[in-house]
Parts: sequence; structure tokens; C-alpha cells
Amino acid sequence: MRHGRRLQKKIRAVDSEWIRFKPGGVPLEKEISQAVIRRIPRYYRCLGELIDEGMERISSKDLSRRMSVTASQIRQDLNNFGGFGQQGYGYNVKYLYEEIGKILGLGETHNIIIVGAGNLGQALANYVEFEKFGFKIIALFDINPELKGQTVRGIGIHMLEELDAFCKKERVNIAALTMPKTKADTIANHLADLGIPAIWNFANVDLKLADKQVVVENVHLSDSLMQLSYNLVKHKQS
Amino acid sequence: MRHGRRLQKKIRAVDSEWIRFKPGGVPLEKEISQAVIRRIPRYYRCLGELIDEGMERISSKDLSRRMSVTASQIRQDLNNFGGFGQQGYGYNVKYLYEEIGKILGLGETHNIIIVGAGNLGQALANYVEFEKFGFKIIALFDINPELKGQTVRGIGIHMLEELDAFCKKERVNIAALTMPKTKADTIANHLADLGIPAIWNFANVDLKLADKQVVVENVHLSDSLMQLSYNLVKHKQS
Repeated sequence: MRHGRRLQKKIRAVDSEWIRFKPGGVPLEKEISQAVIRRIPRYYRCLGELIDEGMERISSKDLSRRMSVTASQIRQDLNNFGGFGQQGYGYNVKYLYEEIGKILGLGETHNIIIVGAGNLGQALANYVEFEKFGFKIIALFDINPELKGQTVRGIGIHMLEELDAFCKKERVNIAALTMPKTKADTIANHLADLGIPAIWNFANVDLKLADKQVVVENVHLSDSLMQLSYNLVKHKQS
Repeated sequence: MRHGRRLQKKIRAVDSEWIRFKPGGVPLEKEISQAVIRRIPRYYRCLGELIDEGMERISSKDLSRRMSVTASQIRQDLNNFGGFGQQGYGYNVKYLYEEIGKILGLGETHNIIIVGAGNLGQALANYVEFEKFGFKIIALFDINPELKGQTVRGIGIHMLEELDAFCKKERVNIAALTMPKTKADTIANHLADLGIPAIWNFANVDLKLADKQVVVENVHLSDSLMQLSYNLVKHKQS
């Protein structure tokens, strides 16, 4: 009963996560903000480094220092998923790493196709690090006939007209869009119609996929350049 | 006096920004967390889109909806820089866009060189969008003699041995590192010694630059892939 009552309060923590309710106080679903989700991969990377360094346990204070995030923020973030620390004992590094991996859906292999085998597409195909996290690039597609049959790190470049047949035969979880922005919308809609559930969009354009069942993650490289610019200007002043 | 008193409190808002003090209550410097800085480019992009749509004024509620961030979070973020809204009047879109641009240091042109003219380096050189924000790619460098004298979008590829002379002659604000990770540390240290104040690091390795005066921004493409994976798995469950 007390538990139910606690849940009935609309909880507003940092970054606007909250719990939604049906009338009667039954929690519908815990909404976790994308701001929290943006931090989770950083925890995962940091913990991976700690494992590589042979560290078995870390206090929330040390983790906080390492992550440049307050200990309270870390606790709040992890509490979204049930919390993983024991008061006074800190965190078990390997356990936390594995649990966060599960939260991020890294327990299974995600097959990726890259649509657009230009410089960026080929650069992504060359990132071996993705495989470490279970992301496996299985094919590239392009319309340039000169690229037909070529490979990048052993991964074949196919012609775009082979896409439909390929997607029927292979399990494709994620499509990376690395082609010119003018074609991105048409291709994205087509990919969604083929049943590909997720699009990793590098095309620097907002995709119009309102009525489609597809998850989109837009990559904005200029955002990180602006962060750099901010720090550069601030550094100059100090 | 009231103002001074207000500043004397250690203010702890979301994302761990705070104000530090000398004994006696004089604010030393306002520390703004990188989490805030990560959101600022998104405000900037969003406001740019609003301008393109011809919108002159926006309520904090509408901006909040558009950004998927709470109105209170937006207020807190902007208050770090003095705040820009008038209670009840919302935000002047163009003014806010320009002010955030200044905060991000976008008022001046930042010259960029790209070290590593492989697929990723060439892909970056092809991003015309960077110029819109004042980031101008002025040269690429590589060790591959086959690339010597070639151009990408009119930007010349130089040999690495020309780097020192180039940096002495030209103003270089940012170096993008897009070469293999094994060489990244050596090159990064050399770039810092040449006086280049900022490194945009794609080499997927933590650079060891402890005693150097250089600002580093690491790009982790796998982070955004993990966010996508989280949303994909969550979407499947719901």
C-alpha cells in the first residue's frame, strides 16, 4: 500500500523522467528521458575501462570523479533501472557493466546494413569497435555501379536494387543512412516498410516517418564541434 | 547586497553545475557542467529550425515540447548564461539563437585541419553544414603519397611532413584526428606542441595530453548506436 502511494506521486527528478499512471495508481510504464539514456553508454564505456584496468569494485565517489558527474546523479540515473549499489559498499564493476549492457540491449547481436557506401559509409564499415558491443555490419548498399561487388573489411557492397531481397533473406535490425540528404527520406520510408525497426541517421535531415513503426537516432556531428568550440572559447578566456 | 547573498549559497542544480567561491563570498567562476554544454547545441539547432519556419517568439512550453526537455530544465540551462526569457512573454527566437551562438563561440570562424585523409577524413571534409556554423576546413593531411595534391570539395590533401610549416603560416583552431588509433597519441601531442588549441578526436582512444594546453572533444559513435539499441529493445517490449 505504501509502495502504491509512493508511486502515485508524480515523481519529477532531474532530466524530466517521470512515472505515468492509469487512474487508480497503477504505474503504466516508467518513462526514462533521453538525457538519461545519453549518459548510460558513457557509464558503460567507463566501466569497461575499469574492467580493463583490473578494478573489481568502485565507490560512487570515485566513479563520480571518473565520469565528471555527481555521485547523486549516478545514483538517480541507475535508480531508473532499479539501482545497483549497496550503501557503503560501492559498485561491483563487472556486475554493473553487465547489467548496464543488458539495459542497453547489448546482450544480443544487432545486424546493421549501411545504405550509402561513400566515404562515410565505408568509414563506418571500418569501425571494428562496433562489433565489441554486438553491432555487426553485414552489408553496404549503393547506387554507384563501380562499387558493385567491392568489399570493405570483407563486407560486400551491394546494389540498392538488391535491398528488398536481402532484407527478406537476412535479419536486419538497424539501417545506417549515409547517403545524400536529398534521398534520405524516400529510402528511410522504404526501409521502414521493409520492416527494419531502427534507423541510424547520418543524413543531417529530419526524417519524416510519422506513421511508421521505426526508431530513429540522428547523429549530429556539428553538435560535438559546437561543444568543442564552447570549451575552446572558454579556455581562451580563463 | 541581496544579489550577493544569493550567490553565496552553493547552488546545486541538475547536472551538477555549481558556483565556486573564495572565502568572503566572491564568486570565483561559474562552472557549467559538460552535460549542460551538450544540450546547448541542440537548443541552437532547434532555434535555427524555428527561424527557418518564420517563428519570431516561442513560449517556454512550446520550446519544451519541441526539445523533449522540461520547461524548467530549459530555464535552468539558460540561467547558467544569464537567462533570456521574460516571464509570460516567452523567448524571442532570433535573439536567443544569436545569444546561444555567441555562448558557443560561433561568432568567429574556426579553421579546421583534418589529420588522416582516409574515408572518415574525406567524409568530414564533405560536410558542407559545418561551414554554416563558422567551422571552415582548410586542409587535410595524410602519409599516403597517392593522396598528395588531391582535393576533397576543393580542399587540398597535404603530406604530413608539411604540417609544421602549414601551421606556422595558417591560423589553425581545431585539428580533427581521423587516423588509425595507434598513431593518434603521437600526432595529438605534436599538434599540441605546434600550438593548436583544440582536438576533435575520432580515433577512439583516450589521448594522453595531461601536461598540454589543449581542449579535446572525443567523438564516440558507438554511444549513439547504444542509445539506438536501448530504444530499439524498449520499443520491442512496449
